This record gives sequence, structure tokens and C-alpha cells, in this order.
Amino acid sequence: MTHYAVGLMSGTSLDGVDAALVEISGVNLETKVRLIDFLTIPFLPKMKKQIEKSLSIEESSNALLCSLNVELGEVFGEAVLEICKKNNLDSSTLLFVASHGQTIFHMPNGLDGFVPSTLQLGESSVIAERTKTTVISDFRYRDMAVGGQGAPIVPYSELVLYQDAKVTRILQNIGGIGNATILPSGGETDTLAFDTGPGNMIIDELCRHFYQVEYDDEGNFARQGMVNEEVLESLMAHPYIQKKAPKTTGREDFGKEYTANLLKKYQLSANDWIRTATMFTAKSIAETIAPFAKGKTELIIGGGGSYNKVLIVMLKELLPEMTVKTQEDLGYSSEAKEAIAMAILGNQTYHRLPSNVPSATGAFREVILGKVTYYS
Amino acid sequence: MTHYAVGLMSGTSLDGVDAALVEISGVNLETKVRLIDFLTIPFLPKMKKQIEKSLSIEESSNALLCSLNVELGEVFGEAVLEICKKNNLDSSTLLFVASHGQTIFHMPNGLDGFVPSTLQLGESSVIAERTKTTVISDFRYRDMAVGGQGAPIVPYSELVLYQDAKVTRILQNIGGIGNATILPSGGETDTLAFDTGPGNMIIDELCRHFYQVEYDDEGNFARQGMVNEEVLESLMAHPYIQKKAPKTTGREDFGKEYTANLLKKYQLSANDWIRTATMFTAKSIAETIAPFAKGKTELIIGGGGSYNKVLIVMLKELLPEMTVKTQEDLGYSSEAKEAIAMAILGNQTYHRLPSNVPSATGAFREVILGKVTYYS
Repeated sequence: MTHYAVGLMSGTSLDGVDAALVEISGVNLETKVRLIDFLTIPFLPKMKKQIEKSLSIEESSNALLCSLNVELGEVFGEAVLEICKKNNLDSSTLLFVASHGQTIFHMPNGLDGFVPSTLQLGESSVIAERTKTTVISDFRYRDMAVGGQGAPIVPYSELVLYQDAKVTRILQNIGGIGNATILPSGGETDTLAFDTGPGNMIIDELCRHFYQVEYDDEGNFARQGMVNEEVLESLMAHPYIQKKAPKTTGREDFGKEYTANLLKKYQLSANDWIRTATMFTAKSIAETIAPFAKGKTELIIGGGGSYNKVLIVMLKELLPEMTVKTQEDLGYSSEAKEAIAMAILGNQTYHRLPSNVPSATGAFREVILGKVTYYS
Repeated sequence: MTHYAVGLMSGTSLDGVDAALVEISGVNLETKVRLIDFLTIPFLPKMKKQIEKSLSIEESSNALLCSLNVELGEVFGEAVLEICKKNNLDSSTLLFVASHGQTIFHMPNGLDGFVPSTLQLGESSVIAERTKTTVISDFRYRDMAVGGQGAPIVPYSELVLYQDAKVTRILQNIGGIGNATILPSGGETDTLAFDTGPGNMIIDELCRHFYQVEYDDEGNFARQGMVNEEVLESLMAHPYIQKKAPKTTGREDFGKEYTANLLKKYQLSANDWIRTATMFTAKSIAETIAPFAKGKTELIIGGGGSYNKVLIVMLKELLPEMTVKTQEDLGYSSEAKEAIAMAILGNQTYHRLPSNVPSATGAFREVILGKVTYYS
């Protein structure tokens, strides 16, 4: 039987919340999912500021996180209502809403004095009340409880959506950070997935710094700059880039502070900086994924970075052995990819079935991800 | 069919985690529950310090809360394993574990710049993995999403356990804070419940300050002191004491800072301070609950405060119109009461049934409380 469901994703780029309305049926690798509609509700500047504060060790507090959890829940609920209304659907008829939540902290390997843990906010109880339907949330914790990194979380959905009988497919998502999933051909499930390093995070930070805009639209700034090889080399020396997969990173490694330090260290023109950072993203992706080409191999790029034309050209040049496509080329919406993934994971949980991929996260077994908040 | 379940409570007194192993069957007001065993796992000093840090707006941070959530989950899981082992039971045969979590922040009415919200920690995914069973957690949020105070949370369990056909019963729990539930006689369900004000919180803080001990054992310090009427009067003038029920308070109102300020303001001997604080607790309870006596009325005292003999005598003197009993007199364990309550609430959620009491919390309707984390 076919049901409607909504997947919600609120990524590290802090743009807002993505909602994907899907038609879904079946379970496991036989899940059939069709995107009906997709929309993004941008965070209001005040909300964005609250989130940024909550991401800082110094500025965050119990009261802030407590309150933000509910405030985000309201925004997430609103996104569901809006996409349902747009499609003349009563949200209470959804089978479920699956919400990733806003990542506030992710330390899969711990940190001095702190144990491995992760924290996503966006209260499911609030979403359930606003939408009058079952909500599935908090997908990452359960994988970490079985020794996984809690990331990447989307590979199961990628197996469902993209695996091909004959072609090795590498899915590269370029959001705030970059993450890749290697899908072997022919129905094998031991996909490998990992964060490649920075996605748009440094580029966006530079655009804000130099131009007070949020991102490099189509790569237009990068197009006018030159790569500074010395700086690039020093960026590529970052310990994360060298580290072996499966590995996971976050805002902590390549965020605001990291970029601020770079700006102090090197004096480049605005566009040279942006092009160098764009090449850093491209090269860190290319070097990490190149060894996984096997037979006919396609690289499929999704996320906000897939709209950066300079970045795509760089990747094509760096990876001549692969066919480089964007998700749009395959008929999928780049933007919607992660929100659709949430719906697929939520569908598994709804049916009390696992959806982590141990070969991707390092978990020692498959588990049912997330928590279920029942509306009725 | 009768099942085993474990309820976990980790209160504002920060003593440790209480685990109640129960036999449970039926649902709604026909729920039958029998306590099999009860134990408390005290927090290690290091854990207690981490919790105290997390309770402070200044000292808490995203990383601390993120990590503490998992660390508490481990302790809670350990408590389940221990009570099961003691009773030769495999934890995987439990129908569920119901965990309240450690309250880190509770602001039912918001706070400047913050929306009404609450935050309990103790990751359910970790408890599920350690115990190999379904975990139900985060009971308070859902009530707040329908306009409730998210507290008190136990009244539904009190209806199940204590309602009498002919006698009005007032249940007074004296933990870190004090809370009362009014159970009308004869099967009516519109119980009223509210926090009366401080429980042992101020007394404990004074014992730590003057004697470096955690509480006033049987009221032995209070017994040797005198009530200072001037200080008592000023304490009773606290706005919360005057406020109308349903109302809810927490560590924020009567915690460490509150007591530290009192100590600066008034100079009394140690035992006079402790007796005065004990009378404050007794009088704030008596004045709040006296108007609810109706026909034959019993006051049943539970929580750590029920072991404070001086406090019990004060309550008997202040409320001569009521028969004052402790939970032990009724054959219930005072200590186990809240952990048993969690099992009763968890049982409702497990069966997708509501368990908030709108007349107690101010919610505009009944809802299914909590989130379900499935082990399999």
C-alpha cells in the first residue's frame, strides 16, 4: 500500500529546513519512493543567530538548547504543514514525518573529557502536535550506541534509490560538509560512506566575509579568481583529509573559527581566496574518492554544491576516469536528496526495521534508528 | 497478560537513579502493577559534578550536554541490568524500560528570550542497546506541546495506584521539591496536582553548607534547632508560595543560588537554619493543600522527606483535620513511588494510550507521552 510521508532535513549549512513530500511503499531494499514536492523554509535571521550561538561551546547554555529545541520543532512542524497545504493534503493523513533535526554537536570519537556522542535538536513532540501525525526523529544516536560514528546516516537511502546492477556509483553530497557513498554494482550492500571534508562551508564563510552574501552563486566569484597553490597545499595538509574512511567530520573541523584563522594566516584577494577554497573542496573530494573507482564508475553530485559550476568543472578535471553527473541528470532533486533520505529511514523505523549501514558508519551491527513519537 | 517492566527515575535531588522492577498488566485505570524490587544506583561524585555543571546556565555547554546525555544513558542502562540480575531476569524479556531522564532545565512559562520548554537527558538509544529492550523516554515534552506545564507528570499513576472509593486522598511527595496530587474519592479523574514549593532542597543545601553531609537524617539537626519566625515569614513571602495551582517549580526557584542568598541575608545557627527551612517546607505544603480537604481526607507522604521525622510531626500539627500517613503505612515504598509511576506511564505509551492529566498540568487535552526507542 502506498502512503504519504514527509522527510525533514536541516543541514550544517543552516540555510533552513528542507521538506520532501513523498509517496512511499514497501520496506528494505524493495522500498519504492517517489518525490511529490520539495520546499525549503529559510530560517529567520533571529533563529539562525540562535542556532549559531548554540553551536559555540562558549555561547551555548542549557536554557538556550532547551528553548531552541522547541523553537526548531515549531519551524519543522510549520514546514510539514506548508508542503501539505501546497499539495492539498491533510498532514494527519501522513503515515509519518521523519525529522533529522539540527545538529548542534557531533563528536563520534569524544573530545577531552567528553564521551562519543551527538546532539540534534527539533522537538518531535512539537512536530507531532502541529502535524497530528507520528514523528520519527533522532536517527544518529542509535548507531553510535552500537559503536558507529552516527554518520553518514543517508547510505541506506542511497542503496534504495541509486544502486545500479552494472555501474559502480559514487554519490557525492556537497552541503556544508562533503560526504560520499560508494555503491557497489549488483545488489551488494556493503557500501562505504564517509565525509570527504569541507563542502561549501569554507566557501560560504569567505563569501560572507568578503561580500556579505551567503554563498558563491554558480561559482561566479571563484570563476574570477586564481588558485593559490601554496595555500592550497597547506589546506590539503589538514589531518582530516589524510585520515582513512570511514571517517566523519562536521562544522567543528572546517567552520567559522577555522576560516577566521586562515584569513589571518594568508593574505589573498577575495576571489583568489574563494577559488582556492573551491579547489580545496574539489581536491579533497577527488583524492578521497578516486581509489574507489571500479569498472564503469559514475560520480553523482548532489547538495547545494552541485549548483556551483566552477566546482563541478574542477571535479570533472580531477576525475577524468569517472562520468560526472548531478542528481538532476538522473532525475532527482539535489536539494531534496537528504530530506528524501529521512523519509526512507523513517519508513524503516516505522516498520521496526534497521537502516544504518555498518560498513559506512563503523557500527558493529544493524539497528532500528531513531525514536517514535506517536500522535495517536 | 502480565509482563515485567522497569521504571527509572532520576530526580532533582541528584542522589542517583532509582529503578523499580514491576509486574504490570492491563491499561488505563484498570492497570494492575506490583512492585517486585527497587534499588538506587548513586551517581559517582564525578557524574554528580557534571550534572551540577549542566544545571548552571553559565557552566553548561553544548558539548557537556551532548556527552552527559550518553553518560547518563549508560548509568540508567546499568541500573536496569543490575535490578534484573538481582532478580534473575534477562532484561531482554522486559516489555519495556520507561525512563524519566535527568531534568536539566524546565521552564514551563519560558524565560526572557526563551520559549516554554523542558530538557531531560539520559539517551534512550544507549539504554535500549544495553538492556536489549524497548525504551520509552522524554515524557514531559508532549504535555507541553499541548499547553501543559509538563509537570507534575505522576498524577496518572497516582490515580491508578491510590484512588479510593470513599476517602479524598492527597499525595504529597517530598523530593528535592514538593508536589501534591489531590485524588477525589469515587473514581473521578479530574485530579489536581501541583508543586507545593521546596521539598528537601533547601534543607539538603544547608546540611551540605554547615555539616558537609547530604541531608538531615531523620530530622536530627532540625530537632536540635529553633524556628526563627522572622526568617520563616520572609521565606513564606516567596511569590511561588502565593501562586495559584496548577503551578510548577524546580531547582531554579529554590536551588543552590537561592539558599546561598539566604545564608548571606540572615545569620542563624546551623540547626536553627535547618529547622526553619524544615518548617518552611512543612508550612508551604500545609497552606497550599489545606483548602483541598473534603470529607474524610488522608494525607499520604512519600519521597525522601517522608523519612524526616521532624517534618512529619510539623505536618501533623499544621493539618489536624487530615489523617497523615506515609506511603509505607499503605504498603508502598516511598522511594520507589516515582520510578513505579514511570512504569505506569510507560505502559500507557507502549499501548499508544495517553497518560497526562490535563487538570493537573493545564494541558488542553490528553496525549500519548514520550518517545519510543525500539530495540527490535
